[in-house]
Amino acid sequence: MQTVPASDRGLTLGVGLFETILAVEGRLALWEAHLDRLARGCAALSLPPPDRTACAEAARAALEAAGLVTGRAAVRLTWTGGDGARGLAAPSPTRPRLLATASPAAPPLASMVLHTSAIRRNASSPLSRLKTLSYLDNVLARAEAIAAGADEALLCDHAGSVACAAAANIFWIAHGELHTPALDCGVLDGVVRDVALHIALRHGFTVREVHAPISSLLACDGGFLTNSLQPAVAIRSLDGTGLSAPGPALLDLMADLRSTVS
Amino acid sequence: MQTVPASDRGLTLGVGLFETILAVEGRLALWEAHLDRLARGCAALSLPPPDRTACAEAARAALEAAGLVTGRAAVRLTWTGGDGARGLAAPSPTRPRLLATASPAAPPLASMVLHTSAIRRNASSPLSRLKTLSYLDNVLARAEAIAAGADEALLCDHAGSVACAAAANIFWIAHGELHTPALDCGVLDGVVRDVALHIALRHGFTVREVHAPISSLLACDGGFLTNSLQPAVAIRSLDGTGLSAPGPALLDLMADLRSTVS
Repeated sequence: MQTVPASDRGLTLGVGLFETILAVEGRLALWEAHLDRLARGCAALSLPPPDRTACAEAARAALEAAGLVTGRAAVRLTWTGGDGARGLAAPSPTRPRLLATASPAAPPLASMVLHTSAIRRNASSPLSRLKTLSYLDNVLARAEAIAAGADEALLCDHAGSVACAAAANIFWIAHGELHTPALDCGVLDGVVRDVALHIALRHGFTVREVHAPISSLLACDGGFLTNSLQPAVAIRSLDGTGLSAPGPALLDLMADLRSTVS
Repeated sequence: MQTVPASDRGLTLGVGLFETILAVEGRLALWEAHLDRLARGCAALSLPPPDRTACAEAARAALEAAGLVTGRAAVRLTWTGGDGARGLAAPSPTRPRLLATASPAAPPLASMVLHTSAIRRNASSPLSRLKTLSYLDNVLARAEAIAAGADEALLCDHAGSVACAAAANIFWIAHGELHTPALDCGVLDGVVRDVALHIALRHGFTVREVHAPISSLLACDGGFLTNSLQPAVAIRSLDGTGLSAPGPALLDLMADLRSTVS
């Protein structure tokens, strides 16, 4: 069992980053994109980035240790803040720890029910765009959604614009265009979000990164959620209101996204 | 060296709480108030609260192990989210881990220079009022302040109201009254903040919990910061503008606060 010293700032203060990567038959989907995002996060947090070869070796070892080199698995890479003394000030030098685990990944859901969280995304903070070890707001929002009988939480920013789900990005069709919240709504800069934007353009969609109220999403002509393990899941309802099902063009896009990611 | 399993949700997701407690000659200041706040935090995060006797024994053992049963020390209690599988969903049952460390505590500063952070307090989140293991916003705000040549960061909420510092609450005199931000500005519910409010009333101050812009603080007739290790530190300047020094009545209050806490 991997352990970390109790003095690691990943534990004491939530300093650090993680990536969740889909592995299919041992192949790591969107590997370079995940490591690129991890490196961008390191720059934002003033952490040295991990060595890419060490990351690949750790991911491989985690898959082997878990007996998951075949089938569908989730690899989590964690890059901690490293040991520090009491208090907020960063140690110098900073020596992060690399951790990797692998778990079985369930097949994607066909659709999801969303519940709007009382917790807003803090767009003023770089953390709102990163996968950091300070992820408790996401945990609380998800728990609130589950308690409300939903599958996942939808979060808005303080201006009331739709931002993202607790563990997914969101896309929907409005006026025949594909909309997704702009990153400055406090949106996680999702690896699959980026892939989805590119594929949508290739499919001939007009794509807009928007600041949109919940009413825009409720009136949509179909929408879906994306993350690394569930690349395209239709949204069935939001706060008890059913959403239009995705039409043929959107279903094509979602299918292409699923096959590209996995 | 204490270690925790890498699967503890304190590390993976920042689920958990901590308390920083001043120890003077082995005596733990405001002990019951700290454990009361920890229990309130557990309720907010759906964690079982720690056993108070176990906390006292862990604090004592940490002081002894660090050779700090005499003098001035900081005891940190950490109550983690416990082991969990991959993903946001909480394990059932949840079995938090209790950790305790002791460090030498430097004598309080005479005064501090503040720098307003670009990061806002997320008043919509219960985390803004708790000392959780998702503390990275505070770490980033402090680093930003240090880089700007200041000692500590001042944070506002999304409405532009003064909230608190990265690791302290704030009080100031306006129109002859003692002002401190209301908790719903995303203010840490500080143990010493609460003590300061009570002592101020005893000193005959009119006390107001306010939603106040930075201009109110800049125009104050003296202000100070509070936390468990530095119960009353005068604010020298904010964003390069000098603040009025505390007058005699405020200095009396600050001295009483220091002697009450330590």
